[in-house]
Amino acid sequence: MALYSSMSKTQLEEEYEVLRQAYENYKAEGHNLNMARGKPGAEQLALSTDMLNVLTPDSVFKTEDNPDVRNYGGLAGIIEAKRLFADLMEVSPENVFVGGNSSLNMMFDTIACLCEQLWKGQENLKFLCPAPGYDRHFGVTEYFGFELITVPMTENGPDMDVVEKLVAEDASIKGIWIVPKYSNPQGITCSDETVRRFAALKPAAKDFRIMWDNAYIVHDINDTPDKLLNIFDEVKKTGNEDMVFEFCSTSKITFPGAGVAALAASENNLKLLTKRYQFQTISHDKLNMLRHVQYFGDLNGLLNHMQKHRAILQPRFERVLSILDNDLAGSGVAEWTKPNGGYFISVDVLPGTAKKVVDLCKQAGVVLTGAGATFPYGKDPADKNIRIAPTYPSLEELEKAMEIFCVCAKMAAAEALIGA
Amino acid sequence: MALYSSMSKTQLEEEYEVLRQAYENYKAEGHNLNMARGKPGAEQLALSTDMLNVLTPDSVFKTEDNPDVRNYGGLAGIIEAKRLFADLMEVSPENVFVGGNSSLNMMFDTIACLCEQLWKGQENLKFLCPAPGYDRHFGVTEYFGFELITVPMTENGPDMDVVEKLVAEDASIKGIWIVPKYSNPQGITCSDETVRRFAALKPAAKDFRIMWDNAYIVHDINDTPDKLLNIFDEVKKTGNEDMVFEFCSTSKITFPGAGVAALAASENNLKLLTKRYQFQTISHDKLNMLRHVQYFGDLNGLLNHMQKHRAILQPRFERVLSILDNDLAGSGVAEWTKPNGGYFISVDVLPGTAKKVVDLCKQAGVVLTGAGATFPYGKDPADKNIRIAPTYPSLEELEKAMEIFCVCAKMAAAEALIGA
Repeated sequence: MALYSSMSKTQLEEEYEVLRQAYENYKAEGHNLNMARGKPGAEQLALSTDMLNVLTPDSVFKTEDNPDVRNYGGLAGIIEAKRLFADLMEVSPENVFVGGNSSLNMMFDTIACLCEQLWKGQENLKFLCPAPGYDRHFGVTEYFGFELITVPMTENGPDMDVVEKLVAEDASIKGIWIVPKYSNPQGITCSDETVRRFAALKPAAKDFRIMWDNAYIVHDINDTPDKLLNIFDEVKKTGNEDMVFEFCSTSKITFPGAGVAALAASENNLKLLTKRYQFQTISHDKLNMLRHVQYFGDLNGLLNHMQKHRAILQPRFERVLSILDNDLAGSGVAEWTKPNGGYFISVDVLPGTAKKVVDLCKQAGVVLTGAGATFPYGKDPADKNIRIAPTYPSLEELEKAMEIFCVCAKMAAAEALIGA
Repeated sequence: MALYSSMSKTQLEEEYEVLRQAYENYKAEGHNLNMARGKPGAEQLALSTDMLNVLTPDSVFKTEDNPDVRNYGGLAGIIEAKRLFADLMEVSPENVFVGGNSSLNMMFDTIACLCEQLWKGQENLKFLCPAPGYDRHFGVTEYFGFELITVPMTENGPDMDVVEKLVAEDASIKGIWIVPKYSNPQGITCSDETVRRFAALKPAAKDFRIMWDNAYIVHDINDTPDKLLNIFDEVKKTGNEDMVFEFCSTSKITFPGAGVAALAASENNLKLLTKRYQFQTISHDKLNMLRHVQYFGDLNGLLNHMQKHRAILQPRFERVLSILDNDLAGSGVAEWTKPNGGYFISVDVLPGTAKKVVDLCKQAGVVLTGAGATFPYGKDPADKNIRIAPTYPSLEELEKAMEIFCVCAKMAAAEALIGA
């Protein structure tokens, strides 16, 4: 494909006309396609429905540390669930707190707790937001009044030169969000060096915290999965055990919204959280914890289950990447990531055209995550990043949606270059 | 039985010696009994286990407003669950927000939300706590830094003369806790007049809120159930729609900790909560909502289910009351409530002896809620109130525990009167 930036104005206008006709044809087809959110598709949801048969009236509801999981009690979760999540996160069960159905809710509660206790009385606080990143992370700290500071992402994770400098200089910076493995949306995994530099941070704020959202901890999609260093092993070496909260959940393992979430933290941090949780609730849903524990048996059972997700997701990611390759490679109007796991493909279109692309797609019946959503305050300074979520549509729908997306990306680029 | 206060010192000493011997015998029997928390017993838990079979891999997971309840989405809950809780609370479904497994957590989140938004920047705030009341209510507002103001309970609910006066005078009083039906621990239901006076409050604080915890909304235990006026009907008449948050849950209908909680509120208040919830989580456990909705069918199904609880609870409450009558009536050392529903019987022992009674019981292997727990800051000014929770032990255990309790109450009274 010809490089758009090398085309003459006439060539671009011809190209635009061809694209416009293709676009009008797609519009006329009346599509209703969605690549907006990282939602598992119908096939994936069906993978875990057997879990609904695990508990029956004849089940034994007594667990090692609970006389009856149907009753109140057990604030930090049943020990069997702690062990499963401990194996998953490679930490000790005593460092695990098992919660409700949403790791986002646990992160929200953690930030609330830190605001109410650790950071109480301090004002004009700031939070580091590696971007492109997860909009809901940024939203939590925005709700609690933090100023959001963008940190650029590199292929090895957040730019640690920037992170180290900022946290060393400014004591009002209280923490950083990060999806360390298969980041949302780029699918980047922090390199060993990045993890070690996280662990070795020397923040001016002694109450600085890393929100280590390991959302895609076992969510590989091919034969060359990324490996992430265990952050807790590293902070033990640097004496920074209290600097990290790690989160994960089964939302994208069993059911989004009916899974189980958990966190791992140091003894001090668990004490801090418990000071709040003891007033907040009596216990989370232990029946659902037991359901999960019995369904998987152990970590191996869970990992085997992930192979079934991979079998569904791998072809989708491959299809998206092959359409991007076919339709955009060589045009110079877009760059994209090729992740080994996670839920997204991140596409950088021609700077200044992302909003336009999303809008063109919308008019043709393809819903994408809003342009800018992957940046703090929803503002992408270069207006170029678009998050593609390939999991929810069927393979056929995905194909059509991606074809339309590519046409829109090229149309917006051609239009911009003609006007330039 | 002879009135203790009319006994001579010698008579009291003789009485004490008889009691002490009975007490030592109980101690020697080595009991391990618990009347501390309002936990359903094993028989009650077994009532709902059929609910675990409701959802299967063959279930239809599509509901009226959700393409698939196994997936993300639906922040305020599935419409079918909203309708069930709306029928239960006698409000419109659009005024209902269905949450997770814990109404306590919803109350905690509501107070947090009001602190972060409505009451933001205001300091030295106070909250009214009708007492004896629910320790976990008081704990929530204590955690958030409120000064807790005790309001006396009457047989018609909180002393509304006191409530009206306090809220009219002091704009730093931001709200009041109340279990309006079968209060914890006294089992008192607010009279029609009390509900109307709540609805007609004219607080100095324009941002005053009533935390209407209708925890025992359908938890009758005999043929003469109490009737509670619908607070939302009343506030509509007084224009105070924004003054009330109502809460309820199925924790004591299906499973404590694995039930579904909900709240009812005005449009304005729901908007306020949604400003927070939209950052806090994506959705609560809709599978568990669907499980409940399908299990009960409708409100009638739920009410029929409550009859089964009643069949288990009525004999327990009757047994406790009959033992209190047998062992304490006429002695003048205790007074107690005779509730028509709820989870507790409240006993006032001789002033100044509640701690002693709880301690004596503990030494004889009977665990009670800590004396004072039913008052703000855990301090009962008269040291007289003890909360009896008769639901968790077996009927046999309950009988034994109550016999021991009565001996302890009399021992402590005799001892106090001898020393006086």
